[in-house]
Amino acid sequence: MLEALKKEVYEANMLLPKYNLVTFTWGNVSAIDREQGLFVIKPSGVDYDRLTPDDMVVVNLQGEVVEGDLNPSSDTPTHTVLYNSFPEIGGIVHTHSPWAVSFAEAGLDLPAAGTTHADTFYGPVPVSDTLTQEEIESAYEENTGKVIVRTFKERGIKPMDVPAVLVQDHGPFTWGATAEKAVYNAKVLEVCAEMSYHTMMLQQFANVAQDVATPQYLLDKHYYRKHGKNAYYGQKNN
Amino acid sequence: MLEALKKEVYEANMLLPKYNLVTFTWGNVSAIDREQGLFVIKPSGVDYDRLTPDDMVVVNLQGEVVEGDLNPSSDTPTHTVLYNSFPEIGGIVHTHSPWAVSFAEAGLDLPAAGTTHADTFYGPVPVSDTLTQEEIESAYEENTGKVIVRTFKERGIKPMDVPAVLVQDHGPFTWGATAEKAVYNAKVLEVCAEMSYHTMMLQQFANVAQDVATPQYLLDKHYYRKHGKNAYYGQKNN
Amino acid sequence: MLEALKKEVYEANMLLPKYNLVTFTWGNVSAIDREQGLFVIKPSGVDYDRLTPDDMVVVNLQGEVVEGDLNPSSDTPTHTVLYNSFPEIGGIVHTHSPWAVSFAEAGLDLPAAGTTHADTFYGPVPVSDTLTQEEIESAYEENTGKVIVRTFKERGIKPMDVPAVLVQDHGPFTWGATAEKAVYNAKVLEVCAEMSYHTMMLQQFANVAQDVATPQYLLDKHYYRKHGKNAYYGQKNN
Amino acid sequence: MLEALKKEVYEANMLLPKYNLVTFTWGNVSAIDREQGLFVIKPSGVDYDRLTPDDMVVVNLQGEVVEGDLNPSSDTPTHTVLYNSFPEIGGIVHTHSPWAVSFAEAGLDLPAAGTTHADTFYGPVPVSDTLTQEEIESAYEENTGKVIVRTFKERGIKPMDVPAVLVQDHGPFTWGATAEKAVYNAKVLEVCAEMSYHTMMLQQFANVAQDVATPQYLLDKHYYRKHGKNAYYGQKNN
Repeated sequence: MLEALKKEVYEANMLLPKYNLVTFTWGNVSAIDREQGLFVIKPSGVDYDRLTPDDMVVVNLQGEVVEGDLNPSSDTPTHTVLYNSFPEIGGIVHTHSPWAVSFAEAGLDLPAAGTTHADTFYGPVPVSDTLTQEEIESAYEENTGKVIVRTFKERGIKPMDVPAVLVQDHGPFTWGATAEKAVYNAKVLEVCAEMSYHTMMLQQFANVAQDVATPQYLLDKHYYRKHGKNAYYGQKNN
Repeated sequence: MLEALKKEVYEANMLLPKYNLVTFTWGNVSAIDREQGLFVIKPSGVDYDRLTPDDMVVVNLQGEVVEGDLNPSSDTPTHTVLYNSFPEIGGIVHTHSPWAVSFAEAGLDLPAAGTTHADTFYGPVPVSDTLTQEEIESAYEENTGKVIVRTFKERGIKPMDVPAVLVQDHGPFTWGATAEKAVYNAKVLEVCAEMSYHTMMLQQFANVAQDVATPQYLLDKHYYRKHGKNAYYGQKNN
Repeated sequence: MLEALKKEVYEANMLLPKYNLVTFTWGNVSAIDREQGLFVIKPSGVDYDRLTPDDMVVVNLQGEVVEGDLNPSSDTPTHTVLYNSFPEIGGIVHTHSPWAVSFAEAGLDLPAAGTTHADTFYGPVPVSDTLTQEEIESAYEENTGKVIVRTFKERGIKPMDVPAVLVQDHGPFTWGATAEKAVYNAKVLEVCAEMSYHTMMLQQFANVAQDVATPQYLLDKHYYRKHGKNAYYGQKNN
Repeated sequence: MLEALKKEVYEANMLLPKYNLVTFTWGNVSAIDREQGLFVIKPSGVDYDRLTPDDMVVVNLQGEVVEGDLNPSSDTPTHTVLYNSFPEIGGIVHTHSPWAVSFAEAGLDLPAAGTTHADTFYGPVPVSDTLTQEEIESAYEENTGKVIVRTFKERGIKPMDVPAVLVQDHGPFTWGATAEKAVYNAKVLEVCAEMSYHTMMLQQFANVAQDVATPQYLLDKHYYRKHGKNAYYGQKNN
C-alpha cells in the first residue's frame, strides 16, 4: 500500500540527520496522496539508524491508522489538521532544530533579515499564538495544528508563501509540495534563524565596529609580510 | 566479574565522543548492580581511543576498588555519594560539555525554556550551591556529591524528575535508570543549554526584530526570481 | 572550448562545500580567460553532488552565453560587471556563508579586528550601499555588480587590496587572481567574520571578566589534582 | 639529524587540523632538543595535506637555519625568543583558533571561569601588552616573543603554571614540556575560550532566566506524554 510514497517519506526522514536537523528521534516527516486521502508518516520514537521504508505508517484524514505495525509519530494529529486545512501542501516536517527552536522559545517571528530568507519565505516566519491551558490538556497535538492554522488565517499569510511556522515555546513545522521540499524548507529555516540571530545581535552593537580596530601599523605589517615584493611568508616558489 | 555491566559501561562511555560531549578524557560514565552493591566506572585519564571493556574498574558502595588494574575516575567519590543517596538511579555521567558548563560557570539554573526541555526534565535543571573552602580542601569529590544531594533536598526536586545538575563553577552530572539513559540525558542537557542560551539572548532583544527588516522590494525580487511564472533561477526542467 | 579553465572552475566550485561555505546550491564560482575575453561559470541551481566540469557555462564580457547546455548562474550579470570593471581579477566567488551574511544583513563593514584579517584584507571589508527600488526592479543582478564597483570607487578602495565585499542585505562576493584564490578569500572572510563577531560582543562586556572568576581555592584544587607531586588524576605510569 | 624529533614535531603539527585548531596553514608547532640547543619547526605556508617529517626545518638558538630545504615558519623568531627565555619549555604552538583569537582581539585576559580552566591553567591566561609601532616595524616576530616574555615577567606569572598567552590583536601561543603537550594546551585554551565567552554573556543576563520560562501546563504535557503510566510517545515495547 502506497509503497512509492513510503519510500519517499522514508528518504525524506533520512535527510533530517544528514542535514543536522535532529537530535536522537526528535523529528518527523510525512507526505500525502491527495487522491486517496491518505498520508504516510514516520513511526514514533524509532532511531534513524534502524528505520526502514516498511516502518512507515499509513494514516487517513481523520487521523486513523490504516496500515502499519508501529505507532505513528505522536505529532500525527498536528499533521492531520495541516493536511485538512492547507490543501496545497504535499509534505510536512517537524524538528527541534536548535536555532529555530530558540526563536520559538523567545516567542519571536523570524524576521526577513535578508535575501537568503527572501529566496524561500515571502515575509517573516510567524510565531504561533500560545496554546491555552485547556487546549493543551484536551487535545494537545490536534490543537497545535489548529493554532498554526489560526495564526496563518489571522495574519493573512498564505501557507505556500511562507511554508513554515514557529510553534510558541515548542519549535518549527515546515511544509511544501512534497516531503523533500518540506525538508528543504526546514533546512533553510534553520540556516536563516542562525543568520538572523547574529544579525540581530550585531544590529544592537553597530557602534562597536570602530572600537575593535587594530593599529594601522600592525595591519600593515601583517598584510605586507604576505603580499608585495617584500613578502617573506611561505616558500619562494609559491 | 560483572562482565555484562562492564561492557554496558564501556559502550556508554564510547557514546560520549560519538555525541560530541567530551574533549580529550574529560568525562566518565558508571553503572551500578544494585543487588551486589557494586558499580563499574571508567578508569581515570585513559584515552577513549584506547579504552576497552576490561579497563573498567569495579567499586563498592564504600568507594573502594574491588577489581581492576587501573585507577578509577578521580570523580569516583562523587558517583559513590550519588548511588548511596539516590537509590532510584542506575547510571551516572559526568562531562565538561561546553554549553552546560557555561551555565554552571555563570551560576545559573538551566531554565525550562520550552518543550524540548520539558520532554526530559520536569522543571529547571538546578545549579548546585557553591562548595565552601573547607569542603573543597577536605574531601573535594565526595563533597561534590554531597552538595548535589543537598541541592536536590533543599529545593525539593526528585532526582528522577530532573535527572541532571549543574555543579557550580564546574559542570554537569546526569543520571538515569541505566548508563545509556544517563548519557541520553547528558546529550539532552547540552542541546537544551545551547537552545536556552540563544533564547535568553533573543529575549533581551525582542525589540530588534523590526530593525533588521530588509526593504520589501528586495524581498520581492529574491522571492519571485525563484518562485512563480517569472522565476529564472535554476534549470528549465526543474 | 576552454577545457582547462572549465576544470579549474569546476574544482574551485567543489571547494565551497569542502570548506563549509554553502548550503544546497547557494554559491557560485567563475574564472576568466582575459586573452579571449570569456569567462566560465557554474550553472544555476545544480547540486554540487551532480556537478561535472562539462556542466560549466562559457560567457562573454557582454554577459552572453557562448557555450553550454545549462543556464548559467543567475548571478552571471554581477560577475560580468566585476570582470569588466576590475581588470586585475581572474576569479569571482559568491556565497551565502552565514557569518559574512550576518554582517551584510546588519549593514556593517567587517572591521579589521586583528592580524588574521590583515593577513588577507588591507582594511575593513566594505558593506555596499543599498540598491534603490528602481535598481532592483530594472536589472537586479547587473546593478548588484554596479553597486559593488561604486562602493569601491567612492571609498577609494583598490579591489586587489580588499578582495571582498558585503552586498547589503544579501551576502559576500570575493575575488582574486584565480578562482582558487577567490575561494581562499571567501573562506578567510567567513572565518574573520566569525572572529570579529565575537570580538565585538566581548568588547561590549570588557568589564565582565572579573565577575566570572571562580574562587581561588577551587582553582587550586583542580590545578593541583592534575599537577605536581600530590596529583591523583590519571594513571601512575603517565 | 634529529630524525626522532622531526617525526614528533610533524605529528604534533598534524594534530592541529585533527583538533580543528587551524584554517589553511595558519598554525605551527616546534620542539627543542635542549642538549644540542636546536629546535625543529614547521616550514612556512606548506599545506598540512602535503607535509612530511622531512619537511621540518632545524634551527639553532640564534634563530639560524641549520638544516632544511624550506623556509621555516615566519614566526620562527618568536619561538627562538621563547626557547631562550623559558628554559622549562620543550614545545611551542601558535594557531589562529577563533575563540582564543576573539579574546586576543578584544584585548581581554581569558578569565579563570571554572574548573575546566583550572585543570590546565593556574590563573587567567594573560593578554600581552600591545607592541609599539617601532617594535612592529623593526623586528616584528622577535618582538612578539619579547612582549610575551615581558608580560609574564611584569605580571609575575610562571610560564609552566600558565602555559599560554594571547598576543594582543593577534592570537594564542601555547607551550609545554613537549610539542604534544603544547598542542594539548592549545586545544584546552580554545575550549575554555568558548566556554568563558558564553559564561560572560550569561553573567550579563542573569536576570533573564525567569522571563524565558514556559507555562507549567505545557511543561507538564510534554513531560508526561513521554514519562509515567499515561505516556504515549514511542512504541509499546520500549
